[in-house]
Amino acid sequence: MSTPKQFDRLVPTGDTHERDVCRTCGFVNYQNPRIVVGSVVRHAGKVLLCRRAIEPRRGFWTVPAGYLELHETPEDGARREAREEALADLALGELLAIYSVPHLSQVQLIWRAELNTPGTGTALFGAGEESLEVALFDWDNLPTDEIAFPTVHWMLKHEREVMAKGYRGPFGNPE
Amino acid sequence: MSTPKQFDRLVPTGDTHERDVCRTCGFVNYQNPRIVVGSVVRHAGKVLLCRRAIEPRRGFWTVPAGYLELHETPEDGARREAREEALADLALGELLAIYSVPHLSQVQLIWRAELNTPGTGTALFGAGEESLEVALFDWDNLPTDEIAFPTVHWMLKHEREVMAKGYRGPFGNPE
Ligand SMILES: [Zn+2]
Ligand SMILES: [Zn+2]
Repeated sequence: MSTPKQFDRLVPTGDTHERDVCRTCGFVNYQNPRIVVGSVVRHAGKVLLCRRAIEPRRGFWTVPAGYLELHETPEDGARREAREEALADLALGELLAIYSVPHLSQVQLIWRAELNTPGTGTALFGAGEESLEVALFDWDNLPTDEIAFPTVHWMLKHEREVMAKGYRGPFGNPE
Repeated sequence: MSTPKQFDRLVPTGDTHERDVCRTCGFVNYQNPRIVVGSVVRHAGKVLLCRRAIEPRRGFWTVPAGYLELHETPEDGARREAREEALADLALGELLAIYSVPHLSQVQLIWRAELNTPGTGTALFGAGEESLEVALFDWDNLPTDEIAFPTVHWMLKHEREVMAKGYRGPFGNPE
């Protein structure tokens, strides 16, 4: 489909960091950390999780989350990801957590959210293209051994802490 | 120096959004929102500001802030920017604010900070390469008409609010 580019690692003129510079045409491929936006979604005393249809971690459970797009507010991004992955319309609440995952160059912004409940008879959620299934779990029956990523463990733990003790500002990475 | 690349705007196979794809070799230039990390730095009851030596807004005052680099934690990034722009070593405090600037595709993470004060006789700060000068300002004598960016107004206002009423979690964009 596409010719792999040959990049050299060097500091472009006027820059302070090494970048990948195309050997042929000098194009500088700036790479930046990425912002993940997502939510811990509550409904009827349960929590919504999505079983991943894509790699990495296909078949494992996660929350609706993904990369923020250009010109999108983080809140809009979190709602968009829930629509795409869980066919769900969210009412966002407080910012639950800000996690940094430097080895993946990610900063994650995670909201508390509830499912919006339109008129009766309407499905509130379903499996989007990137999900095998979407389900509500009791808090004492989470699929703990089949969680996709460490940060999902963190946010479920932090949401429990808010439910028990109230909201006191966003959490960071656990110690 | 470099041949400008010709990019077409299209949705690559398996993707959900339009991207810039090189007409010649198919290279996909993914562009993501960028994370700005910075700090409102206090010392001796004053606040540290940097007068910009670079565009945009050369000659105007800002706080030490810049883009987060790959594999860097946001806290390390905020400290690095203060070293680069103000030759200053910071002790970071609470996260003051999370601002989103969707028209620039930026999310800004801004900390409260104090200058670390090493042994006497050592300069605590100075103008880095991207600064014309770095100075401490009294809170009632800020260069209000020469502030570089709207978010700098926001964070100075929010820091004042914390000083007056205590810290209650990070601020977001003002209404
Ligand atoms: Zn090239
Ligand atoms: Zn090309």
